[in-house]
Amino acid sequence: MAGYSLSKDDYLTRLKRIEGQVRGLQRMIDEDTYCIDVLTQISSITKALQNVGVGLVDEHLRHCVQDAASQSPEAGNKKIDEATAAIARLLRS
Amino acid sequence: MAGYSLSKDDYLTRLKRIEGQVRGLQRMIDEDTYCIDVLTQISSITKALQNVGVGLVDEHLRHCVQDAASQSPEAGNKKIDEATAAIARLLRS
Amino acid sequence: MAGYSLSKDDYLTRLKRIEGQVRGLQRMIDEDTYCIDVLTQISSITKALQNVGVGLVDEHLRHCVQDAASQSPEAGNKKIDEATAAIARLLRS
Amino acid sequence: MAGYSLSKDDYLTRLKRIEGQVRGLQRMIDEDTYCIDVLTQISSITKALQNVGVGLVDEHLRHCVQDAASQSPEAGNKKIDEATAAIARLLRS
Repeated sequence: MAGYSLSKDDYLTRLKRIEGQVRGLQRMIDEDTYCIDVLTQISSITKALQNVGVGLVDEHLRHCVQDAASQSPEAGNKKIDEATAAIARLLRS
Repeated sequence: MAGYSLSKDDYLTRLKRIEGQVRGLQRMIDEDTYCIDVLTQISSITKALQNVGVGLVDEHLRHCVQDAASQSPEAGNKKIDEATAAIARLLRS
Repeated sequence: MAGYSLSKDDYLTRLKRIEGQVRGLQRMIDEDTYCIDVLTQISSITKALQNVGVGLVDEHLRHCVQDAASQSPEAGNKKIDEATAAIARLLRS
Repeated sequence: MAGYSLSKDDYLTRLKRIEGQVRGLQRMIDEDTYCIDVLTQISSITKALQNVGVGLVDEHLRHCVQDAASQSPEAGNKKIDEATAAIARLLRS
C-alpha cells in the first residue's frame, strides 16, 4: 500500500492535467510558438509536478514514516533515510 | 518563427518521452507503487523538463536576442528583458 | 532543543564556510570579476545552503517527527504538517 | 569590466545583507532554534542569493552578450554558450 490511496483520484486528476499540458507543449513547439511562451508553460508544468512531489512526500511522512516510527525508532529511521534522500533528489531536480 | 526550428524534432522527441513518463506516473499511482519510487520518477521528469527549458533559453538567446542585438541595443534589451523574466520563472518553479 | 545538537559543530563549520563564500562574492563584485565566474560561485553557495537545509529536514524528521509520532499520530501529524510546509518552501526557493 | 558596475553598490548591499543572514543562521543553530524556523531562514537566503544570480545573468546578457553580438554572431554565440551553461548550473543548484 503506497499510503496515498485516499487521494489517489486527486493525484490521477492532477497528473492527467500535467500530461495534457506536456502534449500542449509539443503542439506549441510544432507550431513554432514564441519560445518565451513555451518557457512560461514549462515553468507552470514544473511547478505542478513539484506540487505532486510535495504531496507524495507528505503522504510518505504521514503514513510510512509514522507507521514505522510507532513500531520502533530503527524502523522509523529507515523510512526517514529514504524520505530525506528523495527530498534531496527533488531539490536537485 | 520560434527560433529552435532546427532541433524541433529533438524537442518533440524529448517531450513525447516526458509525456510517456507522466503517463507512467499515473500507472504507478494507480497501482499503489511505493511513494519513494514515484518521487524518484518525478525528480527525473522535472529534470528532463528543465533541460528542455534550458534548451529553449539557449535558442532564445542565440536567435531572438542575437538578431535583435544586431539591429539595435534597444531591440536587444527588449528581448533580454523577456529572457531574464523567463529564467527567473524557471528558477522559481 | 532543536534536535541537531549532535552535529551542531558540523552545521556551524559549514555555515562559517558559506559566510566566507558570501564575503568572497562581495570581493568578486568589488573587483569586477567576470559575471560568469560570480554566477558559478553563487550556484556553489546555493547548493551548500540547500545541503544544510536537507540536513535540517533530516534532523527534524529523525527527532521532532519521530518523538511526536511515538506519542500519538495526532502529535506526529502536527510535526509532519510543519515539515512538509518547510520542504515546499525549500523547493520554491 | 564585469558589466554590472552601475549597480555594483546594490549588489554589495544585497550580499552584505545575505552575509548577515548567514551569520544569523549560525546564531540560530548555536542557540538551538527550532529547525523549522532555521529552514524558513534558509529558504529566504537561498531566494535572495538566486535573485542576485538572476541580476547577474541579466547584466551578462545586457552587456557581454549584446556587445559581442554587435561585433559578430560568432562572438555573440561564445558569450551565449557561457550564459546558458551558467543558467543550467543555477537551475541545478
